[in-house]
Amino acid sequence: MLLGLTRGGRVLPSPRRCLLHCRHIKSAATAASGVGDSVLSAFRSICGEDGVSLGEAVREQHGKDESVHRCRPPDVVVFPRCVEEVSALAKVCHKHRLPIIPFGTGTGLEGGVGAMKGGVCFSLRNMEQVLDLHPEDFDVTVEPGVTRKALNAYLRDTGLWFPVDPGADASLCGMAATSASGTNAVRYGTMRENVINLEVVLADGSIVHTAGKGRRPRKTSAGYNLTNLFVGSEGTLGIITKTTLCLYGIPEAMVSAVCSFPSVQAAVDSTVQTLQAGVPIARIEFLDDVMIDACNRFSSLSYPVNPTLFLEFHGSEQSLEEQVKTAEDITQSNGGSDFQWARDTETRNRLWKARHDAWYAALALRPGCKAYSTDVCVPLSRLPQIIVETKEDLIENRLTGPIAGHVGDGNFHCLMVVDPNDPEEMHRVHLFTERLARRALAMDGTCTGEHGVGLGKRALLCEEMGPVGIQVMQSLKDALDPNNLMNPGKILQREEP
Amino acid sequence: MLLGLTRGGRVLPSPRRCLLHCRHIKSAATAASGVGDSVLSAFRSICGEDGVSLGEAVREQHGKDESVHRCRPPDVVVFPRCVEEVSALAKVCHKHRLPIIPFGTGTGLEGGVGAMKGGVCFSLRNMEQVLDLHPEDFDVTVEPGVTRKALNAYLRDTGLWFPVDPGADASLCGMAATSASGTNAVRYGTMRENVINLEVVLADGSIVHTAGKGRRPRKTSAGYNLTNLFVGSEGTLGIITKTTLCLYGIPEAMVSAVCSFPSVQAAVDSTVQTLQAGVPIARIEFLDDVMIDACNRFSSLSYPVNPTLFLEFHGSEQSLEEQVKTAEDITQSNGGSDFQWARDTETRNRLWKARHDAWYAALALRPGCKAYSTDVCVPLSRLPQIIVETKEDLIENRLTGPIAGHVGDGNFHCLMVVDPNDPEEMHRVHLFTERLARRALAMDGTCTGEHGVGLGKRALLCEEMGPVGIQVMQSLKDALDPNNLMNPGKILQREEP
Repeated sequence: MLLGLTRGGRVLPSPRRCLLHCRHIKSAATAASGVGDSVLSAFRSICGEDGVSLGEAVREQHGKDESVHRCRPPDVVVFPRCVEEVSALAKVCHKHRLPIIPFGTGTGLEGGVGAMKGGVCFSLRNMEQVLDLHPEDFDVTVEPGVTRKALNAYLRDTGLWFPVDPGADASLCGMAATSASGTNAVRYGTMRENVINLEVVLADGSIVHTAGKGRRPRKTSAGYNLTNLFVGSEGTLGIITKTTLCLYGIPEAMVSAVCSFPSVQAAVDSTVQTLQAGVPIARIEFLDDVMIDACNRFSSLSYPVNPTLFLEFHGSEQSLEEQVKTAEDITQSNGGSDFQWARDTETRNRLWKARHDAWYAALALRPGCKAYSTDVCVPLSRLPQIIVETKEDLIENRLTGPIAGHVGDGNFHCLMVVDPNDPEEMHRVHLFTERLARRALAMDGTCTGEHGVGLGKRALLCEEMGPVGIQVMQSLKDALDPNNLMNPGKILQREEP
Repeated sequence: MLLGLTRGGRVLPSPRRCLLHCRHIKSAATAASGVGDSVLSAFRSICGEDGVSLGEAVREQHGKDESVHRCRPPDVVVFPRCVEEVSALAKVCHKHRLPIIPFGTGTGLEGGVGAMKGGVCFSLRNMEQVLDLHPEDFDVTVEPGVTRKALNAYLRDTGLWFPVDPGADASLCGMAATSASGTNAVRYGTMRENVINLEVVLADGSIVHTAGKGRRPRKTSAGYNLTNLFVGSEGTLGIITKTTLCLYGIPEAMVSAVCSFPSVQAAVDSTVQTLQAGVPIARIEFLDDVMIDACNRFSSLSYPVNPTLFLEFHGSEQSLEEQVKTAEDITQSNGGSDFQWARDTETRNRLWKARHDAWYAALALRPGCKAYSTDVCVPLSRLPQIIVETKEDLIENRLTGPIAGHVGDGNFHCLMVVDPNDPEEMHRVHLFTERLARRALAMDGTCTGEHGVGLGKRALLCEEMGPVGIQVMQSLKDALDPNNLMNPGKILQREEP
């Protein structure tokens, strides 16, 4: 079963249309990198004239994500249309020892797509099929050009949905590559729990299916768990060309609510107690006073400027009533306000759009500035302390960093708004984020709950894992990619021999 | 925080008491294997005179599990008391190139503890501490001597429990090593979803913490997912010496029910529809007519001899009512009987004991015989077909194989009861299990949902994964255990160079 996402007249994605065959850039790029004419010819013979781009704009577009990490354009961008083309292109790269950088939607937050050593960007946007939907088995397989929203639009009439929601309309294979999660993880899990199988092109161009070709059992003990090795590998072990995902029935009813608290502690205590009470809450998002103030301004809302929880409940009408009552009893016993309701779809969507627009709301606090998001995750019980200490640190160091968090998982973000032209402020932000990460590490936590390591957290990863852990990761990398061709310089920062 | 499991007078586990220092066996064992006197001295200097056993009974006890695979005793059994001793012992083995076989409770079902090449069995039963219980974070860390039942007894007064339940009272670290699951997986997940961190001693004796030492965030994107690489690695990559687990609040109420169906299809259709309706069912177990008949006889029950579902619901009193009503409407629309209830704890426990005693019930069908359990797992929609075809196959080939399955996950077992002294019957069983596994593979499934590969499924794993998948697994094995010392001959069956 092969089902096109765009069934009508198919619009070619923009890179193919804005292809700039600029000779000057081509020479500049290829001189240093080894992407010579014979390599380019090989690429063109695989994915067509239109499928290879040397244009500066295209290369720049593919050399950065949404983070503050500076653009590192690849030497060339290729646009394969199927796994066979990905494999053939990878074989050429392997033969010529050219770095390979997979590219989904560029919505990453840790510089994961920068071409640190030049090389070839594999843009996967032209592989945009939804394959093998099995409604009765609650699973679907998608190509890497399919985004989260596109899949859910596709599923609309089936009664099913894919709930993992990092906010951005990211590619699902990219979400697998970064082990993404987001607001629904407290109920539905992260990509780790929701990927059943992956098709991956390895550094030498061979194709592996992490759970065996076409397989989709709900559970398996068949040898090493390759699926979860590639989930979160950030393109450093292979190129994900298909992912088979768990789907869920769309709940009979959903209701959202907003609740303000006198303190961070009260908001977090309410979260812990709600989970302890066994309420199967779908979303429980924390916004600090600065964040709610920014969201009020940006999204024309008027919530009290206090530590706030955005909550969402999924279930039958009857079970919803009970969930909400339990949660409201708990929040009120912690001094929370009455719930402000969002029952109809439109109001709910507006509420969650405001939450997802937190990034832009934060940016709007200081026009012209850039945003950088921290991403620590700690055991639940440590949240009040780390958030309080972090807010003191922000004030002490005169930094703008509203806080939003997936508090049910212990994961929160400071959305640092920073003037990139002020090196002194940039330095203060850098020191702050290091302090924050170390604060999380000292509280049994991690420096990244869902954004990945990319470029920005390689040193912190060493502190988090310790030398033996890093050595194990490095030996896995060496085993699968002995020439360090796959997205080099990400996650691990080993010096070249 | 370090909490002893047995707080009163501590009883030494039996291996230390029945230690047989039989010179004859020692010589026989050590002559061929390289476990010479200097190695034994080194072992004794690490874990004491009592911590090293060459006794035949002890070695035999540690050379087999509950499967039909024949006993392959190790040359020597060591009983380390802490991770430092495990590490020191492993360093001696590494230096002398001696195979290392980790041993938990010996409740495995695929021959995973057989010492195929002799070597040293690491019995971990003396490491029996429950460490670092964090009730407010819903996590706990345990040593490998702690079993599932021991942990839940320990947790009794905390309002928490660990729900993964494979039936046997297995060691939790052993359950991690085999990626075990069982009856509660449909609601609470398998070990894959419930392990937060592992402490592992590698083949060279170094100690790695798969998520960083002492860390226990609910989610992480920090580098490669080492935790899930070691979960299910069956002792072939390292010795698990600690596991940090997710805990859950004990539900306010639980109720179980039994329902008979006119056909396999009707029972499975009811399962699919119950899941589609979003009922958060905790257990939904299928027993075919042969199995329910055996259970009736063995456990003095009197259920109709038809395809049957054992169901269990967890939640608040109110939500339970709704869950049960939805499920009962669905089962009745498929021709199911009225629910037979088990509401009080005692009746519920009797019901699930009967389910967990299915193995012995099957064995009782043919006294003197042995049992072998198949373990395929397929997408839900394929279950009716595979079960019907498999029952036909059993009848056609005159084999006794009652079927019990975790039908919510698509995973089921034929409990083959076989006369080990009848080579012709053994051969028919072998051919049957191969046909069954290939039937599952042809339906997008796996040859093992929860028992692991061990010895018995190595050839099938190759068919399931294909050559590239096996090669990737082999290269991971080579990277972490280049001398093939860790439980050699399991999962992968590469010829030695």
